[in-house]
Amino acid sequence: MCGIVGYVGPRDVIPVLTNGLEKLEYRGYDSAGVAYVQDGKMKVVKTKGRLQNLRDKLGDASQENTIGIGHTRWATHGEPSDINSHPHTNVSGSLAVVHNGIIENFLKLKEWLQEKGVHFVSETDTEVVAHLVNYYYEGDLKTAVMKAVKMLEGSYALGVITVKEPDRIVAVRKDSPLIVGIGKGENLIASDVPAILEYTRDVYFLDDNEVAVIKKDEIQIYDAYGARTTKEAVTIDWDVTQAEKAGYEHFMIKEINEQPKALADTLFPRIHDGKIDLTDAGFSDDMIEGIRKIYIVACGTASYAAQVGKYVIERLARVSVEVDAGSEFRYRNPVLEPDMLVIVISQSGETADTIAALREAKKRGLKVIAITNVVGSTLSREADAVFYTRAGMEIAVASTKAYITQLLALYMIAMEVGRIKGKLADEEYARLLKELERVPELSKEPMEKKKDLQKLASQRYMDQHAFYIGRGLDYAVAMEGTMKIKEVSYIHAEAFSAGELKHGTIALIEKNTLVVALATQADLLEKMMSNIKEVKARGGYVFAIVQERDAATVADQVDQVFTIPNVEDLFAPMLSVIPLQMLGYYAAVSKGCDVDKPRNLAKSVTVE
Amino acid sequence: MCGIVGYVGPRDVIPVLTNGLEKLEYRGYDSAGVAYVQDGKMKVVKTKGRLQNLRDKLGDASQENTIGIGHTRWATHGEPSDINSHPHTNVSGSLAVVHNGIIENFLKLKEWLQEKGVHFVSETDTEVVAHLVNYYYEGDLKTAVMKAVKMLEGSYALGVITVKEPDRIVAVRKDSPLIVGIGKGENLIASDVPAILEYTRDVYFLDDNEVAVIKKDEIQIYDAYGARTTKEAVTIDWDVTQAEKAGYEHFMIKEINEQPKALADTLFPRIHDGKIDLTDAGFSDDMIEGIRKIYIVACGTASYAAQVGKYVIERLARVSVEVDAGSEFRYRNPVLEPDMLVIVISQSGETADTIAALREAKKRGLKVIAITNVVGSTLSREADAVFYTRAGMEIAVASTKAYITQLLALYMIAMEVGRIKGKLADEEYARLLKELERVPELSKEPMEKKKDLQKLASQRYMDQHAFYIGRGLDYAVAMEGTMKIKEVSYIHAEAFSAGELKHGTIALIEKNTLVVALATQADLLEKMMSNIKEVKARGGYVFAIVQERDAATVADQVDQVFTIPNVEDLFAPMLSVIPLQMLGYYAAVSKGCDVDKPRNLAKSVTVE
Repeated sequence: MCGIVGYVGPRDVIPVLTNGLEKLEYRGYDSAGVAYVQDGKMKVVKTKGRLQNLRDKLGDASQENTIGIGHTRWATHGEPSDINSHPHTNVSGSLAVVHNGIIENFLKLKEWLQEKGVHFVSETDTEVVAHLVNYYYEGDLKTAVMKAVKMLEGSYALGVITVKEPDRIVAVRKDSPLIVGIGKGENLIASDVPAILEYTRDVYFLDDNEVAVIKKDEIQIYDAYGARTTKEAVTIDWDVTQAEKAGYEHFMIKEINEQPKALADTLFPRIHDGKIDLTDAGFSDDMIEGIRKIYIVACGTASYAAQVGKYVIERLARVSVEVDAGSEFRYRNPVLEPDMLVIVISQSGETADTIAALREAKKRGLKVIAITNVVGSTLSREADAVFYTRAGMEIAVASTKAYITQLLALYMIAMEVGRIKGKLADEEYARLLKELERVPELSKEPMEKKKDLQKLASQRYMDQHAFYIGRGLDYAVAMEGTMKIKEVSYIHAEAFSAGELKHGTIALIEKNTLVVALATQADLLEKMMSNIKEVKARGGYVFAIVQERDAATVADQVDQVFTIPNVEDLFAPMLSVIPLQMLGYYAAVSKGCDVDKPRNLAKSVTVE
Repeated sequence: MCGIVGYVGPRDVIPVLTNGLEKLEYRGYDSAGVAYVQDGKMKVVKTKGRLQNLRDKLGDASQENTIGIGHTRWATHGEPSDINSHPHTNVSGSLAVVHNGIIENFLKLKEWLQEKGVHFVSETDTEVVAHLVNYYYEGDLKTAVMKAVKMLEGSYALGVITVKEPDRIVAVRKDSPLIVGIGKGENLIASDVPAILEYTRDVYFLDDNEVAVIKKDEIQIYDAYGARTTKEAVTIDWDVTQAEKAGYEHFMIKEINEQPKALADTLFPRIHDGKIDLTDAGFSDDMIEGIRKIYIVACGTASYAAQVGKYVIERLARVSVEVDAGSEFRYRNPVLEPDMLVIVISQSGETADTIAALREAKKRGLKVIAITNVVGSTLSREADAVFYTRAGMEIAVASTKAYITQLLALYMIAMEVGRIKGKLADEEYARLLKELERVPELSKEPMEKKKDLQKLASQRYMDQHAFYIGRGLDYAVAMEGTMKIKEVSYIHAEAFSAGELKHGTIALIEKNTLVVALATQADLLEKMMSNIKEVKARGGYVFAIVQERDAATVADQVDQVFTIPNVEDLFAPMLSVIPLQMLGYYAAVSKGCDVDKPRNLAKSVTVE
């Protein structure tokens, strides 16, 4: 989604803004712009395309301007263009606004303002905000912004500056994240942490409807009614070097290689005396004991992690689990009963649809556990318990290490629910835990066989289609596998339960069509082999992923075998997903795609 | 799946077999063959490809042979070829076998027979059956077949003849359908009803492990232990002309046009005194009252109907519903509890995975309701209650009228469950029923606008990709829409919940990519418009399906609008699916595809 940076302080503002926007590039964007006050006038420079275009347009003249706001845009209303880029201004150009989110009633507001003679230049929803703030401006920017946002329906994070009060940024948010970076003699706003890490590690996470007035040596925070309020600062412990590529060609492959560490960091600190200890997550036996059903709500990759979670929790804890997409859950009026528990999953903790689902569940009186990677994120603040994945900062748009630690979190929760509900005997619990402790080390092995995946990718990157099949847990992993190749290499891959392929989709299998077959589960191997034969009988090219123990059995029935180390079947997803991530990555590299910033995509989807 | 026909009687057997196989073409096949006894010798003629190839190979010489078996094959083991086609024979060629299903232990049996010196000519699993029966043959074919099948694991419907007893066919089945047609001085076997309708309407549905000895004037039936048993004959009331195209170019478009009648036939006979009456289905209030959760298990198109059912039942009856694919359910060890009810859906009532799910559910002590189109089918015989859709015989592989009546069945069940559980007030029940009664008539309208769909199809049939999006009920219909275009026109269409598109798949939307957007639900219209804008901002071509009332609002934001008549939102799927079926059909026609017999596909999937 869009990125926001704002700065007020002694430094030259332009490089602060452009460097900050660069750190937010991972969120995805199609245009960029900045506004700053120079000699009492508002200067706005903005352009479609990459940040380099903006830098070119700005030129390299050194300037000494000390307040400004910047924005990277991801189109929701109106196509990517110079005009539609942010910042937007009022008619006289004295005031500039950057905005993330969607103003749902912008058409009505636009008509209302047009009746008052306001002339619009862009097709964006954001432009109404600039005109509205101007309409209400009577000498105090904060008051004008507060009046303006009362008119808005939808979601927004806003940064506003005006030439009339060139010492302050006014910021406000609702359902779209915004943080305030607390510096020394300088302060910042941003939509996400990486943009400000160079200047400070201390931040305020603004809550919905809070308004902040940011000057270089003072930050005032007001509640929705205009009363001053105080907030607790949060210190960010991410390593700045995590935001660098550390010798890798792309963040995505760097993060794939960080998975063994991410798994270890997420797992080992939570094992004490041969038991999983989730007290740091706020877990308690009470929360679980009476539970009869678990709802897992998530979007995109996190929802594919949830599919694995469903299988594992049902298997280990014999509690029925339903997985729903955030955007469906919130409008479905789901059947919720008091003995249900809700788990929400989001890397950023700021996914709009997932936040809405959390709020809906809480409104209906249910307990909510969040699985998120970002300390202090909205999900983490609003949930009853929080399982932090310790994957470290994830920069690539295509999630890898966040996904794999979400799986691990769900495994650990499943084992705990199983234990608490008395469905998992002590010996089995101990055996599984011992096996789970092997996974971080085992997860290094697929990376060592990257040549096989590079080769397959180099043969396949021009394919239009691929089908990924599996049964049970393998099917859940297949879903995530297709997402990886889709989002970075734009190959239209679709996942199918292997048993369902013949009910229609097999019509699309032609001679040499790539079929990735996951067959890591002993009890389903024979059935998978039947499905693989159906594919082979129609000429498909089968790339099979199996455990080492089955390589010999499978080898002569498929075109290519990739083995993962032998592991308890239940945990195979944490190993089998790795070659799928790598296949997606190498296909994108072969194709020359912008791996870390795929077209049309955003890292953290903070609009619905 | 494969088709079987067998005949013994006074007629010339070859045209009986080839005409019968023609009637089974809808099941899908890639090769065909016949075996018959001529002058005391077994003649086998078989070939890859269409039935016409077989007819060409047979020539037109009139022959007077009175016993034979025929087969159309759909490859499961070994690619389509003359050699792999059925019938298969023993080494000396005295005995011939046709087989549907999969022999799971055929490799072991093959090795065992090879050790005894048997020489195999094909790669099929079926060939082992011929050698096995021969191995056990000591003068009585029935005894030999019974000994042979004791060795088999897997599923099978078998027809066997031998030159040594040229007056009889021996037939046996397990987990694969087989019927015996009861004629006058002639008798038949077949895998499905259409093959024998020309000769008789009276049939026996063989049960698992039953063995039949069919002579021209006698049918003997034995149980698995060899004891004579008697069966009740079933009379088929389908109209033979239903199996003819009646002036339409293909069965698929004929059946699309039969939907208003299919809906009316399924609905009106079950409405009495302003109430839905499902007593004919064996429904009772007891069955429903204590139910807390419903599991719907189905495969392919029927599983997409189930997705609509989930939404509707949850909405009207506030009972939580889980949908699972048959092939997943049976191996998942699902969490089943005594207060759950299972609904299984299959047009043919013979879908192997769905039957297995029904049996698993019954084994676990749950009540099962079947929704099927075929009276006397396995599902109908084994379920506790049966809702027969009255769509009439469906011939085209791509299901249309069966799907739409499955939807109707689920609506009626949802209303009944809602009423019984006291969640649906009388006035609302009455209002909905009145609205439901309008649907058959309203469903005629989309057909009248076929030109719009023909035109779109003619512009789009060469597309490689399409995306179908919707929210809630519209998403469920989108799934079925993609299935229709996939299976007949081989365009890789994928359905997405509109809110999920931006979490990855939107990367695939390029300039002019076809996006079919369903927006029939008033409460989700605004959100859908936001998603449509995201697609438009990336250059996609949006074909929107909306209710008439919204046409004006939506028209200028999309590339093309198709309207369905205004209807209660809940019932919109029964109207909105029709243009999607037609789009699939016309794209296939434009492309010159074999619409009624798509490549690789089978009508009734009786293997796992």
